[in-house]
Amino acid sequence: MNVENPTAGADSGISERPFLAAFEEKLERTVREDFMLGRREPRILGLAAEGLILAPGAKRLRPRLVLRLGEALHAPPPTVLSIATAAELIHSASLLHDDVVDESSERRGRPTANARYGNSTAVLAGDLVLSLAFVQVQSLPHAVTATAVRLVAEMSRAALLEVRARGDQALIASLADPAGARAAEALWRDIAEGKTGSLFGWCGEAVALALGDLDTAARLALFGRRFGVAFQLADDLRNLRGDEPGKDQLSDLTNRQPTLPLLRAAARDPAIRELAEAVWRTSDGVRDVERLAAAIGASGVFDDIVAEIGGLLDDAVVALGELAARPGGASLVAWAELLRGTVSR
Amino acid sequence: MNVENPTAGADSGISERPFLAAFEEKLERTVREDFMLGRREPRILGLAAEGLILAPGAKRLRPRLVLRLGEALHAPPPTVLSIATAAELIHSASLLHDDVVDESSERRGRPTANARYGNSTAVLAGDLVLSLAFVQVQSLPHAVTATAVRLVAEMSRAALLEVRARGDQALIASLADPAGARAAEALWRDIAEGKTGSLFGWCGEAVALALGDLDTAARLALFGRRFGVAFQLADDLRNLRGDEPGKDQLSDLTNRQPTLPLLRAAARDPAIRELAEAVWRTSDGVRDVERLAAAIGASGVFDDIVAEIGGLLDDAVVALGELAARPGGASLVAWAELLRGTVSR
Repeated sequence: MNVENPTAGADSGISERPFLAAFEEKLERTVREDFMLGRREPRILGLAAEGLILAPGAKRLRPRLVLRLGEALHAPPPTVLSIATAAELIHSASLLHDDVVDESSERRGRPTANARYGNSTAVLAGDLVLSLAFVQVQSLPHAVTATAVRLVAEMSRAALLEVRARGDQALIASLADPAGARAAEALWRDIAEGKTGSLFGWCGEAVALALGDLDTAARLALFGRRFGVAFQLADDLRNLRGDEPGKDQLSDLTNRQPTLPLLRAAARDPAIRELAEAVWRTSDGVRDVERLAAAIGASGVFDDIVAEIGGLLDDAVVALGELAARPGGASLVAWAELLRGTVSR
Repeated sequence: MNVENPTAGADSGISERPFLAAFEEKLERTVREDFMLGRREPRILGLAAEGLILAPGAKRLRPRLVLRLGEALHAPPPTVLSIATAAELIHSASLLHDDVVDESSERRGRPTANARYGNSTAVLAGDLVLSLAFVQVQSLPHAVTATAVRLVAEMSRAALLEVRARGDQALIASLADPAGARAAEALWRDIAEGKTGSLFGWCGEAVALALGDLDTAARLALFGRRFGVAFQLADDLRNLRGDEPGKDQLSDLTNRQPTLPLLRAAARDPAIRELAEAVWRTSDGVRDVERLAAAIGASGVFDDIVAEIGGLLDDAVVALGELAARPGGASLVAWAELLRGTVSR
């Protein structure tokens, strides 16, 4: 099963291939044309943005989500394409800035813009890409832009919360107490929802708002938020469980990310808290990381997480309501089932 | 004469004080309210933004410009206030990112957000502040947002051009050739217009677009661009001529900025090129910096620059057209004369 190309094989009214071809063409045109505008163009800015946006390896999850939701709502194709492009550009802008913030050197198997051209270029390229995203939706109803702005604010906040939570010893210590454990989970949820759920939510919200359907917009915002968090959580689980050997295995632990499986397991077991504190103190204890992963696995928390993902996906499907029965909606339900399948074993 | 509080004493219909009081209140409310929204608010993000936006020492030039242009166009006060707030927030967001890009440690006599809270916080705070700017104008006609987006793209590009031009030895070397000198001046103009002129231009353009007056919008965009570049150039001249002792004197030379006076003087005189190359090679040659400043002064280029500023201000006033005779317009003409006065001596 391939969650990264989720709707390709699913039963779906509109074929994904022509949409994605049109999307890639629009994205490339948007990026290249705009980067040609200046007379004395800082070519490097374009390279930095292109290197990420047009590089192979992008999964185009958000455009695919927009496609299926647009299909379910019978939205005009140009509207669907504009929102899909905006969503991918907002995602790309956030990656450019996140890589600066995280001092990451590699993404999608290539050097990051900050690693290659420096922080300055990556910061400014992110600003430029974000402004291009807003251009895409400027002819749609105002509410689309208004929600995009709030989305960017939420994503920025979540990115900062994440930076601050990473490797935070006090967070691990707080898990000893039930109230602390609840607060830590709430923090995790804010981060996951802000970083992934909010943009997944906007994908459908924007399509519905473009059609003037406020009620559906609210439901699709909820759908995307739950679905996005489920997606994030499944990713965290696979990383920790070692489902995809060779794919940065245990990198979340090494990077001192407070993922939900870690937080839950550490809340339950003082020995896991101690191990986690040890790993978060030193960034190069490979053996400790493996011991910590084994202890989390042995704690039985993985079953909880699988159940949690199931609950989020249930919520997401409920939020779809009658759309779940329509062609694009059915593809999304199939996608949710696919995701559920990859984590339960 | 006080160019930093330009319209306070000028003959102007509306008094500046109540407008600025309303503006400061709206700005503070916008920043604080929005920074309270999150449940687990990363307070540090708000602090970083507040430290810059609400810190004393901000001159509020752009809001003042919006006030006078709004007055001349009889724009409704809430529209004027929204555009003024958006302009100041766009300016603030660009400062937050510029300080990261330039690795600056101080602004307006205080530590910068990047120096105090790190690059991550400053980058994300800039994103958040920029999104708040768009919120301000979201209920105005779409063209206001559309031009704001293009503005952000232009500002990002100019910031990158500036980073790349700073200390670029090849740029100095290129001045030996007339075509190279022309290209260098054009680069300087792109930077000055992108960094200062474009936002000054948007201030009036946005007010006119909010009123649906496309023709005036184009003229006010031009007015602001010329006025903004004149402003920037006057700043560069004063810094180099040492008009304001104690105020970071010669900092542009020390920071290896390719200002117009430097470019022109170096284009004329091989000895100045050599001196400039020496200063740009080492960042700590205080004596060399003073020798370079003296040589530029002796080259007679300051008179050229004063004339250039005069020409830009003439263009700006011409672009105002019949607005120059109206109350707010007359204040702007007075402001232009004040600026002209501070540089001619």
